Amino acid sequence: MTETNDSGRKQEMVMISEVLLQTDQEDQRVVILKERKDADMFFMMFVGDTEFMAIAKEKGAFTSPRPMTHEIYLKIIENTPIVFTKIEIHSMTEGTYYANIYFKMDGKEVALDARPSDSVALALHGKVPIFVNKELMRRMITEKDLENYRDLIKTVKF
Amino acid sequence: MTETNDSGRKQEMVMISEVLLQTDQEDQRVVILKERKDADMFFMMFVGDTEFMAIAKEKGAFTSPRPMTHEIYLKIIENTPIVFTKIEIHSMTEGTYYANIYFKMDGKEVALDARPSDSVALALHGKVPIFVNKELMRRMITEKDLENYRDLIKTVKF
Repeated sequence: MTETNDSGRKQEMVMISEVLLQTDQEDQRVVILKERKDADMFFMMFVGDTEFMAIAKEKGAFTSPRPMTHEIYLKIIENTPIVFTKIEIHSMTEGTYYANIYFKMDGKEVALDARPSDSVALALHGKVPIFVNKELMRRMITEKDLENYRDLIKTVKF
Repeated sequence: MTETNDSGRKQEMVMISEVLLQTDQEDQRVVILKERKDADMFFMMFVGDTEFMAIAKEKGAFTSPRPMTHEIYLKIIENTPIVFTKIEIHSMTEGTYYANIYFKMDGKEVALDARPSDSVALALHGKVPIFVNKELMRRMITEKDLENYRDLIKTVKF
């Protein structure tokens, strides 16, 4: 899928079907997005505790007796004609990822700047597609890569 | 101000003009609501980190380069005819406070169940009144109270 972003430059977008939650060695919360379960490209971002919990709840990981912040607002929005259409994680500047939430209101399409973590929670809740700029995705390191890397290292002269 | 709640019982509501943030001895985040600066009645609740920060930001305590969750949703709602009218912290059950967010949409008034912390952040953002059920407010302990208490203690027979 090719789209044009604000700057007019073409962006190749990857549609996400896997939203994975992890904590890293230092107990930081990590969200990983993949096109498919077996895809070797992935998008990774660190998120705050509350945003991590919001995504976990949307994935059905737990229930809570009281509504979380994003749930209250989505409930308010249910009373309006707003229809969410998609979210896009489109760029990275100075170590920060940027996303847009797209919605329709009275036939008008609106794009709104948002944090990727909030956007992903919203997308899971509203069952709208998640897109990530392909340039922001990394390739998983495979055993074959490691082997090639070891071979490469052997050729390096110190 | 007297209102009728869902159960039809009359509730005396106090309108809040002071929203104070504190951390307690154990570094827990506390929100204190008062009718006036010099009032000796107050409402107190413990809140999570993110909710504390949301209220602090709405009070102008800091700025952040990226929008917080509630700010993104309030920005989405700006595109709709929704008008927030008030919030009410109306009851406490099993140690949990309950609030309602009131808004108008196409002439219809809607009350929505919400956490008090989210409601207060919304009220500060939208500059709508905050009400607290008077029964949920406590009286500040004064020096005079302590003195009376000491006198009372002296009369107690063990």
